[in-house]
Amino acid sequence: MSHHQTAAMLVIGNEVLSGRTREANAYLAAQKLFDRGCRLGEIAVVPDVQEAIVSTLNRLRAQFDAVITSGGIGPTHDDITMDSVAEAFCVELMEHKFAVQLMTDRYGEEGMNDGRRRMTRVPQGSHLIRCEKTIAPGARIENVYVLAGVPYIFESQLDSILSRFGDVEHPFIRHEIDVELPESTFSKELESIQNNFQDVEIGSYPKMCGNKPCGKICLSSLDDDALKRAISDVTNMLEKLRN
Amino acid sequence: MSHHQTAAMLVIGNEVLSGRTREANAYLAAQKLFDRGCRLGEIAVVPDVQEAIVSTLNRLRAQFDAVITSGGIGPTHDDITMDSVAEAFCVELMEHKFAVQLMTDRYGEEGMNDGRRRMTRVPQGSHLIRCEKTIAPGARIENVYVLAGVPYIFESQLDSILSRFGDVEHPFIRHEIDVELPESTFSKELESIQNNFQDVEIGSYPKMCGNKPCGKICLSSLDDDALKRAISDVTNMLEKLRN
Repeated sequence: MSHHQTAAMLVIGNEVLSGRTREANAYLAAQKLFDRGCRLGEIAVVPDVQEAIVSTLNRLRAQFDAVITSGGIGPTHDDITMDSVAEAFCVELMEHKFAVQLMTDRYGEEGMNDGRRRMTRVPQGSHLIRCEKTIAPGARIENVYVLAGVPYIFESQLDSILSRFGDVEHPFIRHEIDVELPESTFSKELESIQNNFQDVEIGSYPKMCGNKPCGKICLSSLDDDALKRAISDVTNMLEKLRN
Repeated sequence: MSHHQTAAMLVIGNEVLSGRTREANAYLAAQKLFDRGCRLGEIAVVPDVQEAIVSTLNRLRAQFDAVITSGGIGPTHDDITMDSVAEAFCVELMEHKFAVQLMTDRYGEEGMNDGRRRMTRVPQGSHLIRCEKTIAPGARIENVYVLAGVPYIFESQLDSILSRFGDVEHPFIRHEIDVELPESTFSKELESIQNNFQDVEIGSYPKMCGNKPCGKICLSSLDDDALKRAISDVTNMLEKLRN
């Protein structure tokens, strides 16, 4: 199996769009994918609305090597992610025998109420994604990984699929340089350096320290050698401007 | 002018996708729009790549009443939002006379370096968005509001345009009910209640309290009366299940 080099996150949940909940799962995935050299190309947050989930998922899965979804796989009426993924792939939603067995082993025949039955349904052709933190599984179908929204379950499920993304031996490496100048005084020089290093991503993130402009120049790359040379060029450039 | 009833947030920045920075601006906008009864329909986070910004912006501005963008309007090479918005609208990017005047008044003719000149450019036909926290303006073109990424500047610019979104007299109202039952035990009943209240959004957000399932049922609506009746039905339903 070749590993996914690019990915998108699809966060499903009214609670994020209404400002009730600060998004945490895409933030976690972003860090973990970066550390494996897998480029996260987009994060989309959509409501618990089937049409929005289906159209966004179909766009993202065509555009990126893989899509990780978060949220909407519980037993309540607002949990419509599995239905939506099935629709996106034009397949049936069906009870997965092994998921039924796992849930029945845990809750007993008498505990298998409608809600728990609902959580055994996955799109036809899916593989279960299991984790330590819960019995109810996520699912993978083709390049789409359907994970839970509850952060500790999301993290546990994410950890169980991470080996399919990028390569832990070839992470992106990041280096940050403190700056105490207004961006406008070095923007031209920084652009020249960026143009010399196509494999290094250089960003400038300003803020105010008291009433003085300050900030960080952030460099990242898969190529450790190019990164070191770019860091050296930025450091020298800032040194010159200070004098 | 009629107020925007729906909106999308377009967050532009590699720093979010690489996990360096936890997204804060969409989270703030989500809360402020909720409090004005304006529905935030999507959040998209895209990299500092013109093609991605243009295509996402064109999709969102066709789909929602308004789009708020965040990030990429500084003086450095990675600040390409204004260029991208101009391309999306098929208009020229040009120095805005009043922006040049504002910046020149502040920094003097001798302080108007390339970086600061760059920050006076807006898509043709734009209106400036000014705020207390910075001289460099944001811009509005048609239904797209182009704001800064630095959180304190974003907030100040957002406050200056909020009156165009929703209506502070008709906010969404949210109420949360603590639950100490597994979701699966009330999912069927909660769905019936949801079906009775089309104007109330009901979500269930589980977590674990120690090793016991707990969580919150969250109800929100523009209609205070419907909300109260739905809250009463959920409370009675939970009371019955406890006995």
